[in-house]
This record gives sequence, C-alpha cells and structure tokens, in this order.
Amino acid sequence: MKIAIIGATGFGGAELIRLLHSHSKVEAIDVFTSSEVGELYSNKYPSMIQIYDQPLLEINYSKLTQYDVIFASTPAGVTSTLFEPLMNKDVVLIDLSGDYRLKNLEDYENWYSKKSAKQQYVDKAVYGLTEWAKENVKGSTFISNPGCYPTAALLSTIPLYKEDLVIPGTCIIDAKSGVTGSGNSLVKSSHFCEANENISIYKMNKHQHIPEIEQGLKMFAGAEDTITFSTHLVPMMRGILSTTYINVKEGTTEDMIQRAFEEAYKDAPFVRLIEEAGMFGTNRVRGTNYCDIHWDLDERTNRLTVVAAIDNLVKGAAGQAIQNMNVLFGYDEMDGLDQIPLYM
Amino acid sequence: MKIAIIGATGFGGAELIRLLHSHSKVEAIDVFTSSEVGELYSNKYPSMIQIYDQPLLEINYSKLTQYDVIFASTPAGVTSTLFEPLMNKDVVLIDLSGDYRLKNLEDYENWYSKKSAKQQYVDKAVYGLTEWAKENVKGSTFISNPGCYPTAALLSTIPLYKEDLVIPGTCIIDAKSGVTGSGNSLVKSSHFCEANENISIYKMNKHQHIPEIEQGLKMFAGAEDTITFSTHLVPMMRGILSTTYINVKEGTTEDMIQRAFEEAYKDAPFVRLIEEAGMFGTNRVRGTNYCDIHWDLDERTNRLTVVAAIDNLVKGAAGQAIQNMNVLFGYDEMDGLDQIPLYM
Amino acid sequence: MKIAIIGATGFGGAELIRLLHSHSKVEAIDVFTSSEVGELYSNKYPSMIQIYDQPLLEINYSKLTQYDVIFASTPAGVTSTLFEPLMNKDVVLIDLSGDYRLKNLEDYENWYSKKSAKQQYVDKAVYGLTEWAKENVKGSTFISNPGCYPTAALLSTIPLYKEDLVIPGTCIIDAKSGVTGSGNSLVKSSHFCEANENISIYKMNKHQHIPEIEQGLKMFAGAEDTITFSTHLVPMMRGILSTTYINVKEGTTEDMIQRAFEEAYKDAPFVRLIEEAGMFGTNRVRGTNYCDIHWDLDERTNRLTVVAAIDNLVKGAAGQAIQNMNVLFGYDEMDGLDQIPLYM
Amino acid sequence: MKIAIIGATGFGGAELIRLLHSHSKVEAIDVFTSSEVGELYSNKYPSMIQIYDQPLLEINYSKLTQYDVIFASTPAGVTSTLFEPLMNKDVVLIDLSGDYRLKNLEDYENWYSKKSAKQQYVDKAVYGLTEWAKENVKGSTFISNPGCYPTAALLSTIPLYKEDLVIPGTCIIDAKSGVTGSGNSLVKSSHFCEANENISIYKMNKHQHIPEIEQGLKMFAGAEDTITFSTHLVPMMRGILSTTYINVKEGTTEDMIQRAFEEAYKDAPFVRLIEEAGMFGTNRVRGTNYCDIHWDLDERTNRLTVVAAIDNLVKGAAGQAIQNMNVLFGYDEMDGLDQIPLYM
Repeated sequence: MKIAIIGATGFGGAELIRLLHSHSKVEAIDVFTSSEVGELYSNKYPSMIQIYDQPLLEINYSKLTQYDVIFASTPAGVTSTLFEPLMNKDVVLIDLSGDYRLKNLEDYENWYSKKSAKQQYVDKAVYGLTEWAKENVKGSTFISNPGCYPTAALLSTIPLYKEDLVIPGTCIIDAKSGVTGSGNSLVKSSHFCEANENISIYKMNKHQHIPEIEQGLKMFAGAEDTITFSTHLVPMMRGILSTTYINVKEGTTEDMIQRAFEEAYKDAPFVRLIEEAGMFGTNRVRGTNYCDIHWDLDERTNRLTVVAAIDNLVKGAAGQAIQNMNVLFGYDEMDGLDQIPLYM
Repeated sequence: MKIAIIGATGFGGAELIRLLHSHSKVEAIDVFTSSEVGELYSNKYPSMIQIYDQPLLEINYSKLTQYDVIFASTPAGVTSTLFEPLMNKDVVLIDLSGDYRLKNLEDYENWYSKKSAKQQYVDKAVYGLTEWAKENVKGSTFISNPGCYPTAALLSTIPLYKEDLVIPGTCIIDAKSGVTGSGNSLVKSSHFCEANENISIYKMNKHQHIPEIEQGLKMFAGAEDTITFSTHLVPMMRGILSTTYINVKEGTTEDMIQRAFEEAYKDAPFVRLIEEAGMFGTNRVRGTNYCDIHWDLDERTNRLTVVAAIDNLVKGAAGQAIQNMNVLFGYDEMDGLDQIPLYM
Repeated sequence: MKIAIIGATGFGGAELIRLLHSHSKVEAIDVFTSSEVGELYSNKYPSMIQIYDQPLLEINYSKLTQYDVIFASTPAGVTSTLFEPLMNKDVVLIDLSGDYRLKNLEDYENWYSKKSAKQQYVDKAVYGLTEWAKENVKGSTFISNPGCYPTAALLSTIPLYKEDLVIPGTCIIDAKSGVTGSGNSLVKSSHFCEANENISIYKMNKHQHIPEIEQGLKMFAGAEDTITFSTHLVPMMRGILSTTYINVKEGTTEDMIQRAFEEAYKDAPFVRLIEEAGMFGTNRVRGTNYCDIHWDLDERTNRLTVVAAIDNLVKGAAGQAIQNMNVLFGYDEMDGLDQIPLYM
Repeated sequence: MKIAIIGATGFGGAELIRLLHSHSKVEAIDVFTSSEVGELYSNKYPSMIQIYDQPLLEINYSKLTQYDVIFASTPAGVTSTLFEPLMNKDVVLIDLSGDYRLKNLEDYENWYSKKSAKQQYVDKAVYGLTEWAKENVKGSTFISNPGCYPTAALLSTIPLYKEDLVIPGTCIIDAKSGVTGSGNSLVKSSHFCEANENISIYKMNKHQHIPEIEQGLKMFAGAEDTITFSTHLVPMMRGILSTTYINVKEGTTEDMIQRAFEEAYKDAPFVRLIEEAGMFGTNRVRGTNYCDIHWDLDERTNRLTVVAAIDNLVKGAAGQAIQNMNVLFGYDEMDGLDQIPLYM
C-alpha cells in the first residue's frame, strides 16, 4: 500500500506519518507540499531523523494518482482546490480539513468565510465519524474526516439523541483543547509565555465546528437541534475534553443512559466507557485513537453531564483518518492504531 | 495593626503573608499552627527566607485575643472548633474555610459530610463577597470569606439575576481551576505526572460550592435557582476560569446586559469588564485580586455565555480576605492588593 | 514468549507493558506485586482500560520460573532479595534497579546506603548498556539494566575515552531530568505546584549514578577517571538531557571527534548523531528508545561540550531493558521499540 | 519622579512597569516606541487594563529630556542609536540591552555581530551589577544594566575569584533559562508545542554573555579567566539557574568558601545564601529581585559546584535596573522591589 500525504508539514501530517509507521499494510509514504519542495521531512521534524528522512515532493497530479490513498492535511479552503483534479481518479481520498464536512454549502461559507467546494464533491464525500459511518465508509473512495471537537462531542451525545433520552434545545457543550489544536504556525496565542499557566476562551459562539456538530446529530441520530458550543485553550499540548450538559426527558433513568452508550459502542474498539471520574482524563488517551466517555446524572436538575476525552491529533485527526482507511479497505480497524496511551 | 494567621502552612496562609507584606497598616504577622510548632515559616516556604523567618506558634487563646485580626486558613471542619473560643472576644475574625458560609446547617452537613458550626455563629458571620456585601462587612467583626469557585461564579452572574435578565433553571457553570486549588497536600491528582498535560473533571454534581453559589444568588440577587456546576482540573498552578451558560429572557438585549455589569461594578476597583475575548484569560489576573469578566450573547440560542477569571488564591481566597479586612476597618480597599498581575 | 514483571506498578513497569504491547514475540505479560494483589492493573493505570486489564498477581517463585523473562522494576534494595531464589533457574532475569550494577559491593553500600546483593550474583549480572555490551548480553541470562543518567552520560562519552581524545580529571556532567525520574510516589518535589515552573538541583556530588558512570568508563573504554556529576529537576515529565564538559587532548580535532562517534555507533539503530543544536532536544526522543547526541568543540578553551538526550523511562529504563532482551534472544534489536517519537 | 521607558512593549518593558508601579518615588511612567504609536499599552498587555492604560508615545528627544530617568528596553544594536542624542543631557539613562556592556568594542562586534556604540559612550556607562558596582552607580548618570545570565553567573563566582580560592581555567558555567529569556517575538523555539516538555541547548560556545562574564570577573575580582558557558532552554516562563563548576585551590576549605560569600553579601539585601539544596530553586525567587546562592564542595574531585537562581526578568533585567536607579538616587535599595516571591 502506497500512501501520499499532501500538506504534510503541519501537525496533522506529522501524526499521519507517526501512526502509519506502525501500520502493517503500508509500504511507502510520500509527502507533498506546495512550498519547501526538496527539504527533508526530518529537517522540519528532527524527531524523525533516521526514521523518516524523505524529501518534500512537489504536488504533481499524474504522480499522485499512482498512490493507493491520498491524505490531505491542508488548511480549510486549500484542500478543495487541490483535490478537484483528483476526483473520479482511481485513488482513495481522505481529507482532514473542513472543506467537505458541511453538506450545506451556505453553512460552510457562513461559518468558514471561505468559498466552498463544489456541491457534487461535497455530496460524494462520506463524513467519516467512523463509529457511526462504518457502512458508508466501506463503500466509499472519498472520506471527509471529522473535526477534532465534533468527534468528541458527537461520540458522547449521539447515543442519547438516538435513544430519544434528551430534550432538544438544552444541549451545551463546553470544550477544552490543548495547544496542538492551533497547529504549528507562529501566533501569539501559541507562544509559550501566553499559553502556559493560562486558560482562555476563543471563538465564542462563532466556531465552525458548531454546524458540524449539529449536522452530525441529524445525520446519525436524526435529531434537529441547535446547540451552544464553546472552546477553551488549555496549557497542554494534546487532548480535548468535551463537557456536555443536556436535560434528560422525564422517565430517563441511569440504566437507560448506560444502555444507550453500551449498545452504541459494543463493537467499537476505540470507545471506552469509563466508570469513575477519577479514572478519566485526557492523559489517559494521549497519543492514541481512544475516545473515553464518562457521565453523571444530576437528580437535582435532571441534567446529564457527559464528558469525552480524545487526543485531538489522533482520534480528532490523523488516527481517525487511518481508522477510516482501515474500514474502507477492510483491514483490521486497529491496524496502526493499537498503542497504549502515553499516560505520563 | 497586628495580624494572626491560624493554619498558616497551607497555600492560603502563605498567600496571606505574601499580600499582607505589602499592606501599609500591618505592623506584625504571627503564624499559628496545631503541629510543627517552633519550625521557621521559611523552612516550609523557602521563598520567604530573610523576608519572613518567624517561627510557627502554638495556638493559645489568651495570646490570640491580643491581635487585631485573626485569619483562619484551616480546613473545613477545623475552623469551627478553633474559632469557638474566640467568639465574642474583641478581635476581628476572618475565616477562609467553608465552615461559616452556608447559613442552612443541613446544607453544610449534606454537602461537606462534616458536623456544622453552631447556628448562632453561622448567623453572625458575614458572607464576604466584598463587591456585594460591602455594607455588611463594614459593620461586622466576623467574616466568612467566600469559596474560590463561588467568587468567580457569583461575580459574573449576580448582575444578570438582579436585573432579571435571565431565565431560572437554565444556569450551567463549567469551572476550570489550577492545581493550587487542591492545596499542598500530597495527593495523586496533584502529582506532576498526573496533573501535567491533562485536563480532568471531579466531584461531578457533588461539589460543596454548589449550595454556596445558590445561596449567593438568593442573598445578593434575591433569586431562587437551582444550578448545574462542574469543576475541571487544568495543568497550571493558579487561576479559575468560570464559564456560565444561561438563557436570557425575551427582550434582553446586549445593551441591557452590558449596563447590568457596568452598573454593578462601577465602584468596584477589582472587577474589570473585558471587551474582547482575546484580552481575557486567567494569566491576566495572576497573583492579584482582580476578577475579569467577559460575555457573549448567542442569537441562535438566546443563550448568554459569561466568563470570569480570578486567581483562586487571591480573589478566591487570601486577597478577598484582605479586601474584606480593608473594608471592615475603613482602609483603602486596595491596600496590600495593588499589584500588576504577573502575566508571564 | 511469556513475560513476568515484578514491581509492575511503578512507572518503569508501566512502560514495560506499554512497549511490550507492540513486541512481535510477546504472547503474554503478567504483573506481580508485593501489595495490592488482585487489583486490576488498569485501575492503577486507567490509560490501559480495555487494553491491559489483568490483575496484580502475588509473587510466587514456582509460578515465576515458568516465564521466559522476568523483569524487575522494584526499588534498589528490594530486587536483590526478590531475585535470589530465581538465580540459577531456567529463566532470563532483567533487573531495572541499581542492585546489580556496581561490581564493587563497597561502592554499592557507600552510595546506596543499603545492603548489597551477594558478590556471586553481582558478578553474574551483565551490565546491559546495550550498544557497548552486546556480545556479553547475547550469552547471558541475567542483565542488570543501566541507570537513566548513566545511559545518557556513557553513550555520549565512551567513544571519546575509548579513542583517547580527552583528558582524564576534566569530565563534568551536568544532567537534567524530567519528573518521571522520581517515580510515582507522592513526595513534595513531585507535587505539581513545587515541580512546575521551577528548576532545582539535588543530590549534589552524592548521586549513586556517579560510581556507575565511572565504572562504565572503565568497563567499556578502559578509562580510570573521577568525574563530577550533578542532577537537576526540570518541569517536564520525560527526558534527560546530559551535558558533558571535558577537555580534549592536544591534537584532538573535530574530525577525530566526529569519527569516534560515527565509528562507535555505525551499527547502533537507536543512537543518532545530530548535526545541529537546533534539531536537538529531549522532545525529539519522547516515548522512544533513541539516544540523540550532539557536540561542539570550543577553540577558546579546548573544551568539548557533548549533549545527549534520552527518554529516561525508555532508553533510560524499560526500552533498554527490552533492547537487551531482544539482543539476548537474537530478535530484531528494534522489536517493540520501533516508534516515531511523540515530539509534540 | 518621572520615568520614560523606550522599547516598552517587550517583556523587559512590561516588567519595568509592573515593578515601578509599587515604587514610592515614581509619579509618572510614560512609554515610548518606534512603532504602534498611539496604541494603549493595555491592549498589548491586557493584564494592565484599568491599571496602566497609557498610550505608546512617539520617540521625541525634546520630550524625553524632561524625564528624570529613561530606561531603554530595546534590542541590542538599537539602543546605541536611540541613546546617542540623549548623551550629556540632564537625564539619567539606564540601558537594559547589551550595547554598552562590553568595554572592548571588538568583543562587542565579534560576539554580537553588530556595529558597536561609540567608545566614549561605552566608557561612560557604568556596568551596573549592583552588588559590586554600588559606588560607581552612585556617582553615575548612565547605567548599562547587566545581562540575565551574567548576573547569576557573576554573583555566584566573584567572591571565589576575589578571595583567590579557585583555579583559573577550570570554570564551567551550565546555565538554564525559562522561555521569557527569548522575549515575546514569535519564533519557533518559543512555540508552546516546541518549548513545552522539552529541554534543549542553544548558542553553544557562542553566547554573547561569555565575554560579559569574563569582563565582570576582571572588573570586580581582578581575575583574567577564560570560561566555558552554555545555555539551556527549560519549559517554564521565568527563572535562570546557573550551575558553576570550578576547581578550588589547594588549601581551600568549606569555611573559606562560606566566609567569602557571607562577607561579599553581608550588606546585600537581595542576595540570599541558601543552606540546603532542598530549599533552593528558581521558583523561590519568582517575580522578585532576589538572587539565591547555594554551593557544595566535592572532596573526591576538589571541585566546587555553585548554583545561583534569579528571575531573569527581575534581577536579570528590570529589577536590577530599578535597584540601580535606587542606588543612583540614594533611595532605599528595595524601593519597588520588596515583594515576596510568587513561589506557586
């Protein structure tokens, strides 16, 4: 299996290489870029010296179509331009950007403030929240990989909506992310002396992951809902903790909630239902594709609190992309992803 | 002015000394303890070598009554026992624990799982959320200093309830705290390799600050409400960010919200209304008594998001205690507290 | 291949499990302990829930001898007692503690302030600094795995001594370590609020790794030298950076130094000679068995500065132990250890 | 007293404002800049909202000469140009850059790779290592404030050279610094995901502070020596720990060393001799002007290890500059600098 990665110099690209390095079916990985052609990848990521020393290659479509899979880890607004010539070629495309996620192009343009991809290609892309999209992923050649926040938010709420246990209009998601979520570009909010020893909030009520979460609830649980979602920056590198507050319907019991989650994820190797809050935290999934979920129902308010923890660069990006590749090609779902988390 | 601190070896006590060191009226600070009598304070806090080298003194009531103010920074359940012999003596008492905060003793016993203080003493204690309790603090000799989370939560919500802008039953407070909030005892959750690079959740729906916040809303805004409140541990030392989600009543406008906050805090030197999210974060108040507040109204959901940032050890503990002392004695409210935050 | 780990609840044990999980020859891993028998391992390390849920087993010698390899990750002073009944049994022993490292028992007792193991067993143990001890490891059944600091210090200095490029009596090693080096016990120096935002020095001129480094220089380079060595605690979890200062002999050129390192490590898959300081740092080896080395010769002083970076829990402990197992059994040296570092 | 700060937007400038805010003689502080004129200072440092909201002023020499003191916190190479028109005016100049530190202009040009200031102005500037330059500072109107590393290195070694206790040619200084040392510009090495969980080395044998330390040893101890000096970047914001290794002369005893330090600093309010390593660390001086010193003599090697800890932004920059101002004007040396360190 030969893999191409476009936009490989970002954190998402580096994670793809790190994880694909352990994949039993991968024979070759090549990296493509629109700048810095010829530079060794290990010059940018010296952690890979002697492990992955290949040069950055120029984007060349006749060459790209010779790969089995092309991952795009380019920014939103860029992938749709780069991918267009590859549509309908005999190559599997997996996009980690937001360009093909929102099926409603108006939503894309409103929330991203960018020109959307073409409707036909957006329609073609399978939204790859693997645990819920497995059947569609299998038959597809074009995957739009979910956003980091939506992955955590959706995995921890879809079962509740699907089983009709919760009250629409009451869903509030308070998300917290590590700094890798902002990528490796040099911006003030990622300066060590700004990010360290600080927690802040950003994009209040404006985050482009809001319509993606709402679309996911509809897509996988048939639920039309309008949510509140906010995002905080936490002084750590990896990890998203998503805390959801939602009112349960009258008659919803703890058993019903537990069964909804257990049923939903009984065949999902990467979703773990964690019984005690003390055993839950983003460090428990670091470096891996796991999504840990824990919940507590407050009898005083009839409100349910659900927390989900993922590694934003793995289950929230590169790991889920590989999981989708595995499902699409019929490989073992855990191939390349069967690591024990780097807890400490 | 002569100051005694009981339970001085915890972080709260150390902060009292740090801040009182800059107070213009303070001539002497003595530290009392139930163990380690005779040890130099600077042995426990070597940061204070040559600055505060005094020995820990044995708790002695005839001696204690000779001070002008006694601060207690002992754990909940301990202060009420220590303070009883000092009631009705000619000395101002300021308690930083939770022992006198909840006016309803049943609430105390339910949420703290400890025996409460006596009703007569609980009644006597003024709940010192300074910005809202100023008049009561002035006439008092016994202050119960608010909890760290309630300080942030109440300062950022009381104006909304008071002006009747929000819908009861919809208030959700998602709080995040640094590790100093757990004190200096050696517990697993405070081990560097557990706390670092991790965000976790604890005491879901069980935190003893829940009834304190609800009591504060009633006390200062006349609002009976039942809230949802959760607490997260963030890998930093100081700081609380409290994110509140609450539905606004029909007709509530951004102007009305802004006016409510401005009016509430027009004479409050430590509350700052921050206009842009990018200027807001816990590092902006580090080491100081400021409480920064920022908000955003989401038109899609008619839900308001309000964030407050404090230093949990200062405005959330020692600083507010000194602010209360200043108000009580008629000193400049900022005496000892007029520092510029240690942003980086 | 069946593996037993004694003292599995420390960080060293947890790393053994994490790495052995990816080892192609390992069929079973069992964990033994002197306390908490019966508890699930994943209760102590929730990162391993659903991955490694086995219970802690009681130490039982007739059972232990049925394994192919026993790793001991118990504290110094404990292993020698636990291992004695296993000597001369048909099982490979690999000790991660300091109990069998110092061949001179007097040194052990002076520097560890503990009773030493028996001379016959100490003599039997092969000091497994893999890159330099490969031939001895191959023929052995009992490995004493090097200390974390000595691994970094020796790998970066042996070639210099071996090629006789440096002046005895001038070697100073200034080492810096992350907090995992102190293990998971609850001590003040590992409290987040003490370790974070702090760098400190400990065990000045008293560290038990001093005689181990000196012994290694003699063992592998035939050099009798007395060194100065100091250890600093750095606010990060993993990683050792060892900075060595040493005067070069007259006539020593940069080429000679470079050749010494290249020759020494031309067949060593885990040692990387890093050309630019900007590409060197402990994050470049995080989570892996690599040892990165970089150096600079100062013409003003004729003094050479050599830096080595390792992950103290991997190349400095569990990783090197597995590397030794691989060599001993004739497996691929990188089996179980072929990960790309978790740079960010 | 009216203060002007040029180059106020860097960390050094922000610290000057933070500390001068508590200075009893300072009536006004104005900030000057070569760009962003008119912007509010608190827009750049929102920690100062409502505390220091003044606008950045254009650099104007007729205006600048109306201040009592001008601090320059501009980069090396910039100050010398900005200061020239202010020479011989009736205003005290205090430069925090390296432009006037090296009395030998060739050294400056070699180590800084910039054009030096004029010899006459360099000669005029008093090198303000306050503890050793007090008498010269008193009679001066132009101070060149020492570098951060030289401050720590010199304070911990001058007494040894002065009392002739050490052997020239054996001095090695291994320094470690927090990330504020690199300032607030957006460079890769200061990105959170690069600096965090990492320790690295930079400018090996090339740091411009090398000649400054050697000059200081000559200036204050009459010692001609050539040192080895290296600098490491540690994942924390503030603090320098400088570890010096130096051979002692035959006959040098622990008493002689202790007396040398005690004698040197008996009247120095900011230098603290720390008896136990466990009480020493950069967090013990955070936010303050203290320099803590601890040492240990190794009898095996006759080598002395001395460690010094400072806050690089305070004693290593803004604090020492204010200390110099205090001495120069005959104020209390601690005015504006009498804080208790923010240990946690």
